[in-house]
Amino acid sequence: MTTRKKDSIILLIRCKDRKGIVARVSGFIHDFGGNILDSDHHTDEDTNVFLMRMEFATDGLQMPPSDIPAAFDPIAKVYEMHYEVYPSAQRPRVGFLVSKQDHCLADLLQRHRRDELHIDIPVIISNHDTCASWAELFNIPYVVYPVTKETKPQQEQQVLALLKEHHVELVVMARYMQILSAEFLTQVGCPVINIHHSFLPAFIGANPYRQAYDRGVKIIGATAHYATQDLDEGPIIEQDVIRVGHRDTVEDLVRKGRDLEEVVLARAVRRHIERRVLVYGRKTVVFD
Amino acid sequence: MTTRKKDSIILLIRCKDRKGIVARVSGFIHDFGGNILDSDHHTDEDTNVFLMRMEFATDGLQMPPSDIPAAFDPIAKVYEMHYEVYPSAQRPRVGFLVSKQDHCLADLLQRHRRDELHIDIPVIISNHDTCASWAELFNIPYVVYPVTKETKPQQEQQVLALLKEHHVELVVMARYMQILSAEFLTQVGCPVINIHHSFLPAFIGANPYRQAYDRGVKIIGATAHYATQDLDEGPIIEQDVIRVGHRDTVEDLVRKGRDLEEVVLARAVRRHIERRVLVYGRKTVVFD
Amino acid sequence: MTTRKKDSIILLIRCKDRKGIVARVSGFIHDFGGNILDSDHHTDEDTNVFLMRMEFATDGLQMPPSDIPAAFDPIAKVYEMHYEVYPSAQRPRVGFLVSKQDHCLADLLQRHRRDELHIDIPVIISNHDTCASWAELFNIPYVVYPVTKETKPQQEQQVLALLKEHHVELVVMARYMQILSAEFLTQVGCPVINIHHSFLPAFIGANPYRQAYDRGVKIIGATAHYATQDLDEGPIIEQDVIRVGHRDTVEDLVRKGRDLEEVVLARAVRRHIERRVLVYGRKTVVFD
Amino acid sequence: MTTRKKDSIILLIRCKDRKGIVARVSGFIHDFGGNILDSDHHTDEDTNVFLMRMEFATDGLQMPPSDIPAAFDPIAKVYEMHYEVYPSAQRPRVGFLVSKQDHCLADLLQRHRRDELHIDIPVIISNHDTCASWAELFNIPYVVYPVTKETKPQQEQQVLALLKEHHVELVVMARYMQILSAEFLTQVGCPVINIHHSFLPAFIGANPYRQAYDRGVKIIGATAHYATQDLDEGPIIEQDVIRVGHRDTVEDLVRKGRDLEEVVLARAVRRHIERRVLVYGRKTVVFD
Repeated sequence: MTTRKKDSIILLIRCKDRKGIVARVSGFIHDFGGNILDSDHHTDEDTNVFLMRMEFATDGLQMPPSDIPAAFDPIAKVYEMHYEVYPSAQRPRVGFLVSKQDHCLADLLQRHRRDELHIDIPVIISNHDTCASWAELFNIPYVVYPVTKETKPQQEQQVLALLKEHHVELVVMARYMQILSAEFLTQVGCPVINIHHSFLPAFIGANPYRQAYDRGVKIIGATAHYATQDLDEGPIIEQDVIRVGHRDTVEDLVRKGRDLEEVVLARAVRRHIERRVLVYGRKTVVFD
Repeated sequence: MTTRKKDSIILLIRCKDRKGIVARVSGFIHDFGGNILDSDHHTDEDTNVFLMRMEFATDGLQMPPSDIPAAFDPIAKVYEMHYEVYPSAQRPRVGFLVSKQDHCLADLLQRHRRDELHIDIPVIISNHDTCASWAELFNIPYVVYPVTKETKPQQEQQVLALLKEHHVELVVMARYMQILSAEFLTQVGCPVINIHHSFLPAFIGANPYRQAYDRGVKIIGATAHYATQDLDEGPIIEQDVIRVGHRDTVEDLVRKGRDLEEVVLARAVRRHIERRVLVYGRKTVVFD
Repeated sequence: MTTRKKDSIILLIRCKDRKGIVARVSGFIHDFGGNILDSDHHTDEDTNVFLMRMEFATDGLQMPPSDIPAAFDPIAKVYEMHYEVYPSAQRPRVGFLVSKQDHCLADLLQRHRRDELHIDIPVIISNHDTCASWAELFNIPYVVYPVTKETKPQQEQQVLALLKEHHVELVVMARYMQILSAEFLTQVGCPVINIHHSFLPAFIGANPYRQAYDRGVKIIGATAHYATQDLDEGPIIEQDVIRVGHRDTVEDLVRKGRDLEEVVLARAVRRHIERRVLVYGRKTVVFD
Repeated sequence: MTTRKKDSIILLIRCKDRKGIVARVSGFIHDFGGNILDSDHHTDEDTNVFLMRMEFATDGLQMPPSDIPAAFDPIAKVYEMHYEVYPSAQRPRVGFLVSKQDHCLADLLQRHRRDELHIDIPVIISNHDTCASWAELFNIPYVVYPVTKETKPQQEQQVLALLKEHHVELVVMARYMQILSAEFLTQVGCPVINIHHSFLPAFIGANPYRQAYDRGVKIIGATAHYATQDLDEGPIIEQDVIRVGHRDTVEDLVRKGRDLEEVVLARAVRRHIERRVLVYGRKTVVFD
């Protein structure tokens, strides 16, 4: 997006739909000298929830970005808005969880190295040491917390502590093969993006490629979603698919699926980082 | 396929995999002067089932096509083959079942008029008179057998009788909104292709577009499959997908889905008619 | 789009980019009691051209839609805007040009019958009588003006006269196999959408499927664009593609291409009708 | 493909189409105890060229693979066949040419590390030292031969010498930004696969993403092809595409294109290595 090149503020808003919100918010930005670069909004017909994303240039803005919340608060009160303010220049701190498979991690790290994602990666946490060489190559701390069924509660506390220590604002499960407990998800205090290796809601649970093979589908998929306490039921951010045929074995599905998992997870992370994803209920708005 | 232009024989074979089948069958065809135009085979690793499709030109063949079974039978016995012989010049007789929605029917009839499909359509059967004008436009008999929960067994017998009367070799459910009973499927004596308006196995059952909307998926699909007694569980022939977003209402999903349903069903029918689809267990081989 | 269900006004704006346009326009709408349903805008970095589409509900609007231009004019003057106002309730009058191939016409007429497109079709004009039965089926006047190289100037004048007589606001070339002259395009006074049967700019000119076959591409496409005096060079509205392989003959490409042409043209017409397409230079913005 | 798991022989044949080739070749394999795992063939209607790929298990084969040519030669003479024999167990030696951009190289090296490709990589040659760290990470010799317009002939001779020294059987241009001279291509003595960053034949030549941006296309592509003396005109092996929109800058196209380039090149290399690609004229057959 071209807007990336300029220093900008992204304002995300969620409230009941009412007349005049767009005019009121764009008027606010204009009054303080902001130039709107991009704006999009959506009203969910079922719930009458209004969701908006506005991005405006800071060049010419007549107040420091840190003063925006105080200035905007009165408007937010009138409309009973939930809102968030993100300076685009500020790089989100993203923590990675991985297990043995390294393809999604390696893919994201390469994008990071090309600065495709505009993030900082303070730490990679794993239950195995398999991916350590990637962390080393890209000079990122790599911490191994092994986990067994018995030690899971303690291990999750270790992971949580480390994420907090690093002030992580987003957790990316890059094929982390552990189910995060409800307690973990409650305590983590930031969004968690997971990549599921199927076209959800098809093939929920374990071994989706095996399930797809056994069912004889002609297309397989991958799904990036926010992790919630209902396994594989979190709000979907991005999906994509690829054709398969009778000649493809389960191993071929796994191989083709890897390519899908990489791009689907990368797109989801990118859109989240650009603050283009808003959650309402169990669904997402993704503003392009 | 170019092979269509020539008069040819299609031989489909299914048996346990053994050494030498390809050599034995291609030798048989060659010995009688046949020229192999296209051949493909597949062995299912899980069950060791061998499936083959061979198409050979009749030009130069030293026996009438009707004698092929008698000549091939000894080979089939040695390898314990199940086999079928189809002259490509013979147009399969296809019966259509429809309800109120006409888009798949209209689409298939137009392909039929352009002779894309190389079929005869002796009859269209419906539980409503909604689509009668299409039948009239294309000069095809259109018979209405209304159905209620109470009259379903009798109505199915009427449908069966009419299909048999017309010597139908394939039944296409072009958005026929009735579930065919196990009895019907047992008695019909020919394959039945159904189009399901979701990316199976996601959203089995009623209102798949509503289900997809509620789940917030980013892609919807359509699935053509052989109808079996396990609803929405029959062997999949073809699937395709299209992107959707938060702006799409259920009605938009229905609209976008129509385009998918048309092409997915048409491709499945075409491939079946070309004898490219072989069923094993609950899966299909589709030879391109 | 859900917005279709409500009576609304669509405002399209094009001007040099300046600060405050969004605020000014949304303020204008709000001041007169309009409720913004959908808004999107884009600034072309190369030319600094600002393009905007705003759709607002007429329910609660404190002036009749016909007064909007007079009220908006002072703002337009300040920003030197080119703008257009469309009531969504008003069905655009669309004229069709066809030749011998009927698939795009038949497809669009069926969408029209289901009222997918919210248009009126006052006339179908052709240089052949081949498609007359479709016009008859859907009760639309069908006029044949044959054309030869010699009579082309006169035939174009006949076509122009008939389009004007029917107050056509959009012309759709549904596989009209004549090149419209520069004079025609100057005089027609409304946009003309053409469907080209290739993935432009690949395979410009005649027989693109033959060209694609000869080049051995693995994917073919179709392109809907506004017709301009530079053949096949007009602003692209929509494109899509499908895979092909070595087994596909030119006839197979033509057949597969038909499916593409239908959906690509239908999507382009739909987006134009919804006033989502804005042209700048030789490119389009398509607001989703 | 499952066939990979077994030790097998791949036989590629090209000759004028005649009756009985399939029977003769499959008979030959059967006579020596080979079990056909996979077979496919194609006849080009324009030139009457017959192309075949047969893969058969060596388990049970009554002669050493090295004796196959001598045994097969008499048949090849009868049918005037050009043929090649490849043991699947033998890993092709692939040399890479790269410049500054590392994404295709990094992607292929990771696939190599997972042994997706069944190749050996004896050397990576570049005109820059930018990608040296990748070579180091994967323990592959990396040689830099800088090039200027003046030194190009000598540099190409250095490259050729090194490729020959390493007995390279395939050269992969993984975004090598130099045009190989006709002399180089004549002397290299093995196939060269290039990845072009456009949907050929659209946007031939330099800066295809800039060209695509300027033309306002709605889809961009990437094309893997064999390098020939006619720049960007070589036989196409694989293509794929992705949607773009008016919000995408040239940089966004470059970024989206990278993902395409990686998978398209990887698929082309994989299919070549599996001996599924046969060239005839300026086109390819790709047997799935």
